[in-house]
Amino acid sequence: MSAVEAVRWSADGGAVDIIDQRLLPGKLERRDLRTVGDLCDAIATLAVRGAPAIGVAGAMGLVVALAPFATDRREPFLQRARELADRIASVRPTAVNLSWAVRRVVSTGMETAGDGAAILAAMRDEATRILDEDRAMCRRIGEHGLSLLADGARVLTHCNAGALATAGIGTALAPVYVAAERGRRVAVFADETRPLLQGSRLTAWELDQMGIDVTVLADSMAASLMRDGRIDLVIVGADRIAANGDVANKVGTYPLAVLAARHEVPFLVAAPLSTVDLRTPDGTSIPIEERRPEEVLGNAAPPGADALNIAFDVTPAELVTAVVTEAGVLGHPLDEAIARVAGGRFA
Amino acid sequence: MSAVEAVRWSADGGAVDIIDQRLLPGKLERRDLRTVGDLCDAIATLAVRGAPAIGVAGAMGLVVALAPFATDRREPFLQRARELADRIASVRPTAVNLSWAVRRVVSTGMETAGDGAAILAAMRDEATRILDEDRAMCRRIGEHGLSLLADGARVLTHCNAGALATAGIGTALAPVYVAAERGRRVAVFADETRPLLQGSRLTAWELDQMGIDVTVLADSMAASLMRDGRIDLVIVGADRIAANGDVANKVGTYPLAVLAARHEVPFLVAAPLSTVDLRTPDGTSIPIEERRPEEVLGNAAPPGADALNIAFDVTPAELVTAVVTEAGVLGHPLDEAIARVAGGRFA
Repeated sequence: MSAVEAVRWSADGGAVDIIDQRLLPGKLERRDLRTVGDLCDAIATLAVRGAPAIGVAGAMGLVVALAPFATDRREPFLQRARELADRIASVRPTAVNLSWAVRRVVSTGMETAGDGAAILAAMRDEATRILDEDRAMCRRIGEHGLSLLADGARVLTHCNAGALATAGIGTALAPVYVAAERGRRVAVFADETRPLLQGSRLTAWELDQMGIDVTVLADSMAASLMRDGRIDLVIVGADRIAANGDVANKVGTYPLAVLAARHEVPFLVAAPLSTVDLRTPDGTSIPIEERRPEEVLGNAAPPGADALNIAFDVTPAELVTAVVTEAGVLGHPLDEAIARVAGGRFA
Repeated sequence: MSAVEAVRWSADGGAVDIIDQRLLPGKLERRDLRTVGDLCDAIATLAVRGAPAIGVAGAMGLVVALAPFATDRREPFLQRARELADRIASVRPTAVNLSWAVRRVVSTGMETAGDGAAILAAMRDEATRILDEDRAMCRRIGEHGLSLLADGARVLTHCNAGALATAGIGTALAPVYVAAERGRRVAVFADETRPLLQGSRLTAWELDQMGIDVTVLADSMAASLMRDGRIDLVIVGADRIAANGDVANKVGTYPLAVLAARHEVPFLVAAPLSTVDLRTPDGTSIPIEERRPEEVLGNAAPPGADALNIAFDVTPAELVTAVVTEAGVLGHPLDEAIARVAGGRFA
């Protein structure tokens, strides 16, 4: 069903082929990322964005960036791989998927015998596995989340955790797409998501492409909808889930969770297990990216005005009704459920 | 102190002289409103805005619009006055100050003996009284609110309830200005206030003009600041206060109040008694203006996207710590405090 392929290999395999999300919804244009500079710039400027998608793009981009060094001997090749991985991972600190994915590729390299060429081939296979797993993960999240969406459900989402944020059909939006495939009517309310408007630019665009009913609202209007009983559930993605179930996601998620609790609206987080960071005990240890004040001020404020631009916030586990993962729907106590499904995986 | 006079008589007294707030902060330009069409258009497009300011402008504009009919006999003149007052009051339904102010002018006319010219003169005096009272009211709100602002206070506000929203030094911002006059350091965090950005365009501008430290943030970031203990109190204005203390104000106020309660941050509403509507028993009976979807969508969303544009929300009295009025700071139970100070006034 996904007409949207946010991240894929280029036809020649020599580049990461992304949709340039800075140009949406005005223009649907793809870009090939061929160097680590290209990749880091694309991630920093949100040409490619969404925790799962930047993980996939980071893994693939690391391989692309290493290709010119395939003739290197083992140690210098691995040394370079580690340096590039660190550089890529540092571009966006909050989403753990990015560092998880590049570390996974480096790890595979370290476990592979031989020099540059052999290691590179193994790394490429690993990056492709991450890509394929991401697609499969989205589909499974959609299926696990399906039971939460009755026919006629009215869903509120924040930012974009759809196809554009993954290599597949999304995380938060995956259950919506699967429900629509099964003939259920679902209406989505999309927070516009200031300051970068991922909701009105990206979520509205991709839902419209898929023929799903979508209504944009200013972030501050969601409370009124919940109060008026017009929202059946909230589903959002995640940039990092701590071991105790605290969730970092796009700024504006935490206030939604507080409001959902007040209005007894289920508040669901949909994310792959790669978003779980068992080394982060709780939300207080998650680094929160701050971005340029200009993203908030735009042309609106007077010259010289100051602004805060906190890109993420942390929702405490107590406000999360359940976490929908590829391994199933995790309920409370979240710390135990998380340990059960994520304890054994690559960390 | 107020260098900003949002509403005043023109030099010749034949027009309402306003700052055209649509052009701020880029351009500080004044406009004369000489007809009822001018006035209604200026109110509808938010050239003049803020509950107290549109009340004052409405009262003065009604007088200006009636001036050409001064030679009419009593009954046709009063009939026209009632029609124009209804037309003006209907432009923005949520803020009660607008209908309150034009009704007050019409009432004065009805109580005045004679024909058009005599009635018009009395109405002009009444409109001037409303203007002068508004200025005095702002100052008194500032003084009553002063005790709430310790030196070094960090205040969060939403939308613009400052000098630009009144004929004087504002409502929510009046205590900030008075505190600054007394040498206290106050830092203001201004929600940008989507969709029309009154916070970044207007609040940031006027505070900067007055030399007050101001930082703009996206509406969805306020929750993080409260959680991190960076806000000492929230002060907002109001468009209508029901008899039970429920408060209608710019959309985004209600979620702030919910968050303030969660984080034990005092949540104050500053408004004149003209904002109290004793005929509205509670928030459910307050009409909520909806505006054009385009104000939310701008150029961001794909063509044909739907949007909600609810302009106001209602904060239940239980979440309001106190209401600062010209008659003093009203605490709980708010319904009793409101009845005490507003019961005897013109309604």
